[in-house]
Amino acid sequence: CPLPHGDCPLSRLLRHLLTARRSLDICLFAFSSPQLGRAVWLLHRRGVRVRIVTDAQYMGLQGSQIGLLRQAGIQVRHDQESGYMHHKFAIVDRRMLITGSLNWTTQAIQNNRENVLVTEDVEYVKPFLDEFERIWEKYNPINYKFF
Amino acid sequence: CPLPHGDCPLSRLLRHLLTARRSLDICLFAFSSPQLGRAVWLLHRRGVRVRIVTDAQYMGLQGSQIGLLRQAGIQVRHDQESGYMHHKFAIVDRRMLITGSLNWTTQAIQNNRENVLVTEDVEYVKPFLDEFERIWEKYNPINYKFF
Repeated sequence: CPLPHGDCPLSRLLRHLLTARRSLDICLFAFSSPQLGRAVWLLHRRGVRVRIVTDAQYMGLQGSQIGLLRQAGIQVRHDQESGYMHHKFAIVDRRMLITGSLNWTTQAIQNNRENVLVTEDVEYVKPFLDEFERIWEKYNPINYKFF
Repeated sequence: CPLPHGDCPLSRLLRHLLTARRSLDICLFAFSSPQLGRAVWLLHRRGVRVRIVTDAQYMGLQGSQIGLLRQAGIQVRHDQESGYMHHKFAIVDRRMLITGSLNWTTQAIQNNRENVLVTEDVEYVKPFLDEFERIWEKYNPINYKFF
């Protein structure tokens, strides 16, 4: 984005996220964008309740923001399955759904052709809220199996 | 899906696709599901105008349906960029948008945690229609550069 406050897709995504006042629920296959990581950290610092669900195989890859966000005190849970936790969505204040093809990676933001759909229509937000709560419980560490 | 006409997500996706009467515009990073390939082929045989945009790096991978669908006479175009054409959406009769995290692969359908959002709300369908037409022209073979 050439301008610091330009209307590039990343700026718009950041602006949507930064409207969060109470909660931010994130469900992402891959999360390595430093800008988006910083925004999430900032919201956590402001007292917004941040919860992150991610993919076990991708969370430890180089450049992942997950470790940093965990160190900052943000709750993170991950799948325990051989398949991918492939969702790419976030829900702001249980009100606004941000979903699409975009993983929160610099590669995707800068080089890929992607879509992000933002909606406050309850008809669309509700199933994603329900899915988030379902997998947040399913991936509760008390349910982890160690081999 | 245990039942042949069960209400599993794949059956629901197939049913939505098979409502197409005039056109089916598909924009997919990866397409290897034989069931979905067969449905698209069937629609083409019925006279539905099928157009496919896909990712150049993934279209030739083993199990890809793209070659088979091209051989059947379906028009396929692909990106010419180093980044991925990472969309995962389809538009039925320019009316119904099917979009989400799901690539049309057996791996994703059987093993991953994915979402698919289906809507006929023009507010959401229109930007995806516009994106499809934009990249359909951008990826027109007359614009290909050979090195």
